[in-house]
Amino acid sequence: MGIVVQKYGGSSVADATSVKRVAQRVVATKKAGHDVVVVVSAMGDTTDDLIDLANQVSPLPPARELDMLLTAGERISMAVLAMAIGNLGQEARSFTGSQAGVITDSEHGRAKIIDVTPGRIETALAEGAIAIVAGFQGVSQTTKDITTLGRGGSDTTAVALAAALGADVCEIYTDVDGIFTADPRIVPTARQIPRISYEEMLEMAANGAKILHLRCVEYARRNDMPIHVRSSFSDKIGTWVVRSEDVILEGQPMEQAIISGVAHDRSESKITVVGVPDQVGFAAAILQALADAQINIDMVVQNVSAAATSLTDISFTLPRADGQTAMTALARLKDEVGYEKLLYDDSVGKVSIIGAGMRSEPGITAKFFRALADADINIAMISTSEIRISVVVAESQVDAAVNAAHTAFDLGTDEVEAVVYGGTGR
Amino acid sequence: MGIVVQKYGGSSVADATSVKRVAQRVVATKKAGHDVVVVVSAMGDTTDDLIDLANQVSPLPPARELDMLLTAGERISMAVLAMAIGNLGQEARSFTGSQAGVITDSEHGRAKIIDVTPGRIETALAEGAIAIVAGFQGVSQTTKDITTLGRGGSDTTAVALAAALGADVCEIYTDVDGIFTADPRIVPTARQIPRISYEEMLEMAANGAKILHLRCVEYARRNDMPIHVRSSFSDKIGTWVVRSEDVILEGQPMEQAIISGVAHDRSESKITVVGVPDQVGFAAAILQALADAQINIDMVVQNVSAAATSLTDISFTLPRADGQTAMTALARLKDEVGYEKLLYDDSVGKVSIIGAGMRSEPGITAKFFRALADADINIAMISTSEIRISVVVAESQVDAAVNAAHTAFDLGTDEVEAVVYGGTGR
Repeated sequence: MGIVVQKYGGSSVADATSVKRVAQRVVATKKAGHDVVVVVSAMGDTTDDLIDLANQVSPLPPARELDMLLTAGERISMAVLAMAIGNLGQEARSFTGSQAGVITDSEHGRAKIIDVTPGRIETALAEGAIAIVAGFQGVSQTTKDITTLGRGGSDTTAVALAAALGADVCEIYTDVDGIFTADPRIVPTARQIPRISYEEMLEMAANGAKILHLRCVEYARRNDMPIHVRSSFSDKIGTWVVRSEDVILEGQPMEQAIISGVAHDRSESKITVVGVPDQVGFAAAILQALADAQINIDMVVQNVSAAATSLTDISFTLPRADGQTAMTALARLKDEVGYEKLLYDDSVGKVSIIGAGMRSEPGITAKFFRALADADINIAMISTSEIRISVVVAESQVDAAVNAAHTAFDLGTDEVEAVVYGGTGR
Repeated sequence: MGIVVQKYGGSSVADATSVKRVAQRVVATKKAGHDVVVVVSAMGDTTDDLIDLANQVSPLPPARELDMLLTAGERISMAVLAMAIGNLGQEARSFTGSQAGVITDSEHGRAKIIDVTPGRIETALAEGAIAIVAGFQGVSQTTKDITTLGRGGSDTTAVALAAALGADVCEIYTDVDGIFTADPRIVPTARQIPRISYEEMLEMAANGAKILHLRCVEYARRNDMPIHVRSSFSDKIGTWVVRSEDVILEGQPMEQAIISGVAHDRSESKITVVGVPDQVGFAAAILQALADAQINIDMVVQNVSAAATSLTDISFTLPRADGQTAMTALARLKDEVGYEKLLYDDSVGKVSIIGAGMRSEPGITAKFFRALADADINIAMISTSEIRISVVVAESQVDAAVNAAHTAFDLGTDEVEAVVYGGTGR
């Protein structure tokens, strides 16, 4: 049999009891005949505790040292997991990101993986051992300093290692059964998705589905590495994230569902710059000011100008965490651009329908908007991609909008899934 | 100015406040014009907490993984100290044992330093940065695995780095002002020793003085690296540990004191094998059985046999922690050796007088024993080296014996030192 890479998040290894449960699952996989590589996050709240400690000695800790500090978290969890596996009679060897050959650039706190040279992992597997690898961390190619990969880092480590090792699958363990057609806390009839394409999963992740991080899915797509998202609390088959041509399962209807799922995101806010002169260069100046402030904006809408005034409004969404920074950057532009005023709205939400099938199916937009209209939901902004339609609505109407879309596209089951939807740690 | 290596133990970096205080001392040394390398232990009880965690998942954690786990402790303290120094406006870079070039053998949990290749430290110093190095850890030359050096490891790291870097001095910071002529908790008039030779310090450390670990002093002697033991709570000059020819300070009487200090040790117990046939090979069989059980014995005394019976008693001292193992090993020998019985006594203590001056001074032993006799203290065992005389006495008489020796050799001051004698972490 081949190589299986398994990734366990912080909540799966939160304490000794959880670590022992993970150890049993790992050993069971090994006994089933696979070579097993395990990627772990730091235990429970370790990372937050370490950040607290850093803030106690320095208001703005140097990024290099913060990385050195935070990587202690995975060092602890991986060694403890290796011990727990050893106690079950299987040899396990733990490896830091550097030892596992996770080579990155030098951007501390958000390093990108440049190369993976897992020679020591291959040796460990060849010698019959289970390899435990610290997620979230690597070593800089140029400075040889310890780096961290930022949010979603451990998932990315797992996929990158799986690709470099030529693994059969990268299993991402979490506290839910897989990817759902919508958040089951909002839509009780939401259905687990058996298979989804990388492209659809990317849109889901980019638009609020929190189970997998964008970077990890991108890496998997580029390397054609199947991801199996499943629960660390059960043996159920979860959701496979695969190439679009592999999505259709034998025995299923030959036509793929038009819409795969409904995602939502409450982490954004909306800024409107009111009364911008409708002239070349003013919109660009506004977007440049935001870019200079390192703010990633999501959707942008420029209204048609009122003919009488030649003034227009520009609205955009951005992460709520960046709201203050953005307002400050824009306020500095007031004299230059001569806009009228700024409006800030953090009571918005984004609802997206995602499905590869909409490429070839006309009328999806109309059907989505009619469902929202029938539910008395007002659309503030719209953006689309080839396989996604997103709308911004009032935050108070997000749940209703998700349910309306879910029902309109007939995504639900008759049963109510008894799961809690949540994060995966980092 | 030259390079100064400073080592701070776990109690000196126990929390954010302590770390900030250490940072100020480090920066002050840098501002005085020195290149500064700092070696740190894990914060406070971190190491014990990690050991507890390991024991929760495995009764006998694999040594490789225990080392991986424990080294997380220094990773945390060094990164936090680097941040605190950065916050004072000086650049500090932290380095793991591996990054600092501490190359060891592969004996996990008690690795020996084979080589030190501190290229990255030298680069950091050349670039004007302060280098922070994780104590207690290194990397195996052959397996490239992370290793720990065992007890006293951080002190040894500091001395080894100081030697490899050609430092002017290795400063060991602790919670007392230096090395004293006796434990001031027992002898209120004990005096701080300004200078002591490596050889005397070795005897002090080997016979119960806990401030410096044997290995670190041995390493310093082999490499002629002066150690300055001093308090992290004051700016007082502490005790310099130097070559014997450098002990005599200018302006001091030309003759060195005959006795430098009195050490004591309550960590040993005594086993007596009663009624051993006084024949060739039986004593050897007993000692071999103990060696096979990995027990280091300290003093051994074989009584003259009673002529009538041709039976003898063999007594030896050993660490109390090994008492049970030793008794079990000896019990297995009963039929082979045919001894009468085993006596176990863990209410003993060892008192030693140490001084290079006793080499050329007759009558020291007599004076020591007379002082003990005058204090009604019975001597159970005796051992000597060229510069040390040790006696085993009842544990209840250790304090009286230390005071008797201290007074007899006129070691005290008129003042009472207001210090608390304690350990230095690891």
